[in-house]
Amino acid sequence: MPALAQPDLEQRAAVEAARAYRVTRGAEILNDFGALLAIPNTASDAANIERNAEYIHFEFKRRGVRVELLKVHGAPPLIYGVIKTPGAARTLGLYAHYDGQPLNHDRWTQPPWEPTLYTGPIRHGGRQRPFPDEHEPIDPEWRIYARSASDDKAPFAALLAALDALHEAQIPLTSNVKFLFDGEEERSSPHLPQYLDLYGEVYDDVDTWLLLDGPVHQTRRPQIAFGARGITSMEVTVYGPEHPLHSGHYGNWAPVPGAMLSHLLASMIDAEGHVLIDGFYDSAAPVGPTEQEAVAAMPVQDEALRREFGLVHTEDGGARLIERLMLPSLTVKGLQSGNVGTRSRNVIPAFATASLGLRLVKGNDPATMHDVIEAHIRKQGYHIVRVTPEHETRLQHEKIARVIRRKGYPAARTSMDLPIVPQIEAAVEAAIGQPPIRVPTLGASMPLHLFTDALGKPAIIVPIANHDNNQHAADENIRIANLWYGMDLYAALLTMWF
Amino acid sequence: MPALAQPDLEQRAAVEAARAYRVTRGAEILNDFGALLAIPNTASDAANIERNAEYIHFEFKRRGVRVELLKVHGAPPLIYGVIKTPGAARTLGLYAHYDGQPLNHDRWTQPPWEPTLYTGPIRHGGRQRPFPDEHEPIDPEWRIYARSASDDKAPFAALLAALDALHEAQIPLTSNVKFLFDGEEERSSPHLPQYLDLYGEVYDDVDTWLLLDGPVHQTRRPQIAFGARGITSMEVTVYGPEHPLHSGHYGNWAPVPGAMLSHLLASMIDAEGHVLIDGFYDSAAPVGPTEQEAVAAMPVQDEALRREFGLVHTEDGGARLIERLMLPSLTVKGLQSGNVGTRSRNVIPAFATASLGLRLVKGNDPATMHDVIEAHIRKQGYHIVRVTPEHETRLQHEKIARVIRRKGYPAARTSMDLPIVPQIEAAVEAAIGQPPIRVPTLGASMPLHLFTDALGKPAIIVPIANHDNNQHAADENIRIANLWYGMDLYAALLTMWF
Repeated sequence: MPALAQPDLEQRAAVEAARAYRVTRGAEILNDFGALLAIPNTASDAANIERNAEYIHFEFKRRGVRVELLKVHGAPPLIYGVIKTPGAARTLGLYAHYDGQPLNHDRWTQPPWEPTLYTGPIRHGGRQRPFPDEHEPIDPEWRIYARSASDDKAPFAALLAALDALHEAQIPLTSNVKFLFDGEEERSSPHLPQYLDLYGEVYDDVDTWLLLDGPVHQTRRPQIAFGARGITSMEVTVYGPEHPLHSGHYGNWAPVPGAMLSHLLASMIDAEGHVLIDGFYDSAAPVGPTEQEAVAAMPVQDEALRREFGLVHTEDGGARLIERLMLPSLTVKGLQSGNVGTRSRNVIPAFATASLGLRLVKGNDPATMHDVIEAHIRKQGYHIVRVTPEHETRLQHEKIARVIRRKGYPAARTSMDLPIVPQIEAAVEAAIGQPPIRVPTLGASMPLHLFTDALGKPAIIVPIANHDNNQHAADENIRIANLWYGMDLYAALLTMWF
Repeated sequence: MPALAQPDLEQRAAVEAARAYRVTRGAEILNDFGALLAIPNTASDAANIERNAEYIHFEFKRRGVRVELLKVHGAPPLIYGVIKTPGAARTLGLYAHYDGQPLNHDRWTQPPWEPTLYTGPIRHGGRQRPFPDEHEPIDPEWRIYARSASDDKAPFAALLAALDALHEAQIPLTSNVKFLFDGEEERSSPHLPQYLDLYGEVYDDVDTWLLLDGPVHQTRRPQIAFGARGITSMEVTVYGPEHPLHSGHYGNWAPVPGAMLSHLLASMIDAEGHVLIDGFYDSAAPVGPTEQEAVAAMPVQDEALRREFGLVHTEDGGARLIERLMLPSLTVKGLQSGNVGTRSRNVIPAFATASLGLRLVKGNDPATMHDVIEAHIRKQGYHIVRVTPEHETRLQHEKIARVIRRKGYPAARTSMDLPIVPQIEAAVEAAIGQPPIRVPTLGASMPLHLFTDALGKPAIIVPIANHDNNQHAADENIRIANLWYGMDLYAALLTMWF
């Protein structure tokens, strides 16, 4: 691994410019960010997701960036943007996504698209307060609560503010910059391959991609990541009687789908979280020495995380989180059969469904992983179908499972030994005063493989959000200190030489 | 067992009167029944459940029956009624319930409280048609679809019509009659013990209780039953992280409650439906010789039922339904964790809940059954709590289960050798031309123990509904032939000597 680069004067000046800018314009940055967060951004909400794209388009355009909304049928726009820097030899690609995780029945303290400022984490007694006016000092421990406050609208606010700060300080960029802003990352970017097929050559001159997404390390130390896990999922439904039966008249006789599903899931995963499915771990690529070294150097925060999450025990006998993330995972994301609580009824339900989430590591192909799981389900005696079985099908098979394979994408990794790496580390150091933790792979998923494989370029993840941002859950938030870190970091990255 | 009694002339005349009456008044009976079915009757819906009681009160009162709405705080009214028959030496108690199973998210073909007439079962192509006008012949294969059409408002329609028919034919009753109409049977009659404490002595002179509830045998043959299973339930929630975690950042590390719950349930029930919990079967009273004889004499319909319900296999290696009903059962009524389907999200949910339904046989005490299940949960390493665990509690126990014990009541059985039994059988024979199947116990639950134990009188269940009535589920219905059977049967019962 190359020696650490020191931040040069230009980067220090860029960070200073960012800081100076927000002394006077901090309230404006937060209020503008609030306006973006107020636009509902579920990818399936076509009208609103378009409004997000138009807002972002407008904000970059009025700063003189050439920006276009690319379209394919049935998908949110992909936002393409380009900043040409006179004399620049290199081109930096920046990726972020403007859609957010769908809501479901989460109980938010505040409505998710009514961004609300708190003096600290709600769970630790943070109090609601108005967004600041222009003369008020801004406490970096404040948090904005809103869907996508962290994941993944914060990079837009930070990037716009960083561009404004550099412009005001008359500090020139050092490279060309191209933007690729995704509008359906939270549903696994199903149209991104098509977008890249159609429009990919506009990105041919990008030398390195930076992915602006994800949280910093749980210690609050900065991190940069060279890979991300892939993702896919499956829905498995097992069937009892064709319609719900009275649990008195038929209880002890009719098969109970909730019990069948429990047996099936228990056969897949043991009590320590080890997946028992034949072949599940076989295709994972071995972890190389550089990556093992980076893993060994990472801070161990497991005990603190367990305390934070109220856990005495974690899977695999308490093995280290980072080591566990180097393996594919199988998570029971959802279970549903009949009803529970006050809605529970005295019936034998007709079916039970499990939603299974998979995270993949380098080497795992989504379809192959589906195959090994289906083979396991068959080994448990199930006949597999793709649609709800008809009466005649039910009369032919003792055990029937409907398996729906959801889309997904594989994991990807970028080499940790590229010459740009020390430059990025120097930018982090300039922004926050310490070098980043080097993470061989994030546990989370990003369509990194499209950059590394389809576009064939290195792709490095540069996260800014606080780790406790409640990403994908209720009360998602961003800590202002992390937003400011993003602004400083982007100012430094836009002025690095590589 | 006493020899079969033959229906006497009075009972035959009573049945003839019922039949004659509905030739001219059949449409009126159905339309009046429709008016009762149109009143929503979930026990927790205080305003509407009261409207049901008032409607029933009014209908009996205008027929000259002395009827009163008894009240205890927070409960639907208990309807008390009495018909004094001059010179009668005996008193027959009649029980029915006017509340219905709560709805939940069932998808009904028609709204559940908009009673709708079909020419046959909807599932087999029955077509919707208007309620008949007074000159139209009524096809006994028609069905009325509505919540409680069978369970348990049909007895009210049949009883009112039987009383009208006997009155019109000037056929006197042979006994005094007392009514006890329950308004919260579907939530296990929680206030009935209190009602009987307060008002029970008005029923002191009842000699035998007839419970007007439940379906006839699956063969469509009539049946009478001498017992019912008891019922209780539990909710078991197991916990993962204190709040949902991103399945990428923490998947393979944080414990997954859906997997934990699957292991717990799989440890309770094997793949053939045998309960593996120590002591679960220990308290069941042995089945006596008369009951064994009755069980052996019952028709075997298992294969037809399996075909009807789309099942190749039933529990315990396909053991006979009636034999399985002589044992307590443990049913996974509901499962819930996170979300499935389009609402599924990429999180490790914070908890997973199972709703467990128990059906009890004679000898099983609900609290003792709860105890053996809790002992099993503890043996699996769980610390049991009654409320959602606080952070500090979570940090003290590796596995935590919240167990909520719901109310319930025990099973009960009445002797099959009482002198009234042949009289009831004769009434059935008069009504339908064949003697009933004798059932030692129904699989379903009724608060029979209150009659046999609290009031200390024999209690025999006299069902009329078609077995395929979709009781407790969507598209509940009554077949008109079964409504007519009820009318005939009640006319015969009200004119029997015992």
